[in-house]
Parts: sequence; C-alpha cells; structure tokens
Amino acid sequence: MMHTRSAHEANEPKKGLTTKAVILGAALDIASKSGLEGITIGNLAETVNMSKSGVFAHFGSREELQIEVIRKYYEHFSQVVFVPALLKSKGLPRLRHMIDSWLKISVGDNTSSCFFIAGAAEFDDRPGIVRDELVKSVEDWRAALLRAIKESIALGHFKKSTDARALLFQLYSVVLGAHHDSRFLQNPESLALANKLIKNVISSNQNLKSN
Amino acid sequence: MMHTRSAHEANEPKKGLTTKAVILGAALDIASKSGLEGITIGNLAETVNMSKSGVFAHFGSREELQIEVIRKYYEHFSQVVFVPALLKSKGLPRLRHMIDSWLKISVGDNTSSCFFIAGAAEFDDRPGIVRDELVKSVEDWRAALLRAIKESIALGHFKKSTDARALLFQLYSVVLGAHHDSRFLQNPESLALANKLIKNVISSNQNLKSN
Repeated sequence: MMHTRSAHEANEPKKGLTTKAVILGAALDIASKSGLEGITIGNLAETVNMSKSGVFAHFGSREELQIEVIRKYYEHFSQVVFVPALLKSKGLPRLRHMIDSWLKISVGDNTSSCFFIAGAAEFDDRPGIVRDELVKSVEDWRAALLRAIKESIALGHFKKSTDARALLFQLYSVVLGAHHDSRFLQNPESLALANKLIKNVISSNQNLKSN
Repeated sequence: MMHTRSAHEANEPKKGLTTKAVILGAALDIASKSGLEGITIGNLAETVNMSKSGVFAHFGSREELQIEVIRKYYEHFSQVVFVPALLKSKGLPRLRHMIDSWLKISVGDNTSSCFFIAGAAEFDDRPGIVRDELVKSVEDWRAALLRAIKESIALGHFKKSTDARALLFQLYSVVLGAHHDSRFLQNPESLALANKLIKNVISSNQNLKSN
C-alpha cells in the first residue's frame, strides 16, 4: 500500500496518512479484543512491523493513540448503527432500529464488543483525556437516543406522560444487561430476553390511541 | 499484629495466617480502586512493605492471589448484602432488601465499586481460572436472587404469570445501568432513576389480590 504511481513528493503526505490508517486499524483490532488499555506502543509496533519510534511519529503519545481509536470506533458505530437508523421514519421506527442494531453489535458472536460499553467499564475509575473522549462519545450516542425518544413522544407514538430520561435509562440498562449476560456469563438466552424486554418496555409506553 | 503473648511455636501458624490476611486486605483495597488486573505482586509487596518473594510465599501465583481476593470479596458481599436480607421475611421483603443493599454498594459515593459488576466487565474476554472464579461468585449471587424471586411467586407476592428468569434479567440490568451511569457518566440522577424503575418493575409483577 506504500507504492503508488504518483510522483514521490505528491505521495509523501498520502503515504503518511495511509501508514497512520494502518496503525490505527491495527490498534482498533487490539482494542476490540483486549480493551483500550490493551493497546501498547510495543504490541502495536510488532503487529504493524514497525519500530516503536515509527509508531510514535504518527501519534504523540499512547493516550493520543487511544483517543484516535475512540474516534475511529465512533465513526464505525455511526456508519453501522446511527446512519442506517436515520433512513427510518422519525420517532418510534427510528428508535427501534437504533436499539436493535446496537444490541446486535453488543451481543453478537464476534469477539469484538461495543466499545461504548466495554470502554465505560474499563475507564470508569481512570480519570484523564482518554476517559473524557469516551464519555463524550457515549454522551453523543445517548443524546441521539434521547432525541429519538422525545420525537416518539412529540409524534404521538409514545404517551405524553412518558418520562424520556427514565426511558433512556431503562433501554440503556437492557443493552448493558444483554452485553453482561452474553459476554461474561455466556448465557445463550440473553439476546432473546433483551429483545422481549425491549418490546415490553416500548409497548408499555406506546400511545394506543395513535394510528 | 505479629506479637502475641502466646509461646513462639504456637504462634507460628497464626503469624502466617495473619500476614496472609494483611496481604489479602491490601490486595482487596488495590482491586477496589484499580480492578483485579490492577493487582501486581510488585505494587502489593510495596504496599505491605515485604519482598516480592515474601508475598509469593503466601500465594503460589498472581492468579491464585486474585482468586483469593474474589473469595474475600464474596465473604464481604455476603455479610453486607446477603446475610442481612436473610433476616427479612421470605419472598418480596427479602428480594427488595437484596436489591436495595446491592444497589447502594454499587452506586455509593465510595471509590470502591461492586466487584461482581466491575470484575465482569474486566474479565469478560479473559478466559482462565480467575474469570471462572468470578463467574462462579456472580452465578451464586444470581441464584440467590432467582430463589428470592421464585419464593415471591410461590408465596403469592408476585403474580403466578411472572417469568422469574426474565425478571432476574430485568432487575440485574437496572443495577448494571445504575453502576454505569453513576461511575462512568457520574450522573447524580442515576440512583433515583434506578430506585424508581425497580419500584415500577416490582409493582407491575405484584399480585394485587394478595394481602
């Protein structure tokens, strides 16, 4: 990937960007399996077959690298979960899609799990710039969920009496529970239990008088 | 603590036990703040002012030490959460007490959090004997909760139609949610939201015809 047909000089910045993307991709892989704290400049240099100083040249510090991994995951999460939900109609159809696809990546058979959940547990007692970046990403996702809940109320899909923040807490907790039961307890029932509970929670808030 | 008035020989095994308890206490402190993976023989030896080999003499390996820390926490959890609940009447009063006191230690202002929750996140992708011990402890606690739910159904406190395993999943998820929101997001609302939700979940399963 470091050979292109363009002139050497024009190629330089592109090569830099590409190498950085390769390192970042490898870091994301490591973090998916062993958490953000599992990333070390040493194991990363080994994975991408570079010197430690070569890796350092692209990221000022381990923390800067972890922050870029979070941003990269945020981008991936947006593409896989958030953007497809925006294609659904506003309100309940969009909210349902958001929860369903998030649940799928959190509970799936793949070895990687949702960073927003795994990272929260990893960094809840580690103050610093990495934790701050992670909180920002999670708060963005929660704001999107809250917006979809509020739109569901405004559009009459949910009862006017629905407490949006309480419902956010409830739905978020179900996904955390499914993540815990499937990843840690390896309980094969967890996805079915979570889906049933989400269905019940949604229908208990639904405005039966609408459409 | 290493000086007693008893004869030296009789004192030897006691000294060994006491030193081991001191090391274990220090390990539990470290783990409460930085997780089970935060325990290293090095930082532990420094904390208790012993040599690394002195610490190793009491525990065969770091993993053995982590397992003993989990057992110690299990004992503590039993004393603080489980045993007091057994003094309550069987069924719903006991279940309520279990959930309330568990929620308190999971969400409280203290820097230490519930090992069963923090450890689950830490070890969900680290197979081995430490993870196995942690799963065993968590499954014990879940079995106790499930038993209390089933007793609540048998005693007519909950409706006969209550799905015990689904209710366990739901209640457990709420505590995970409260832990997440208070520890990671530092949301001061989380305990109130969790308490309100638990109250609603319990009352929606209650048998209104009983007493």
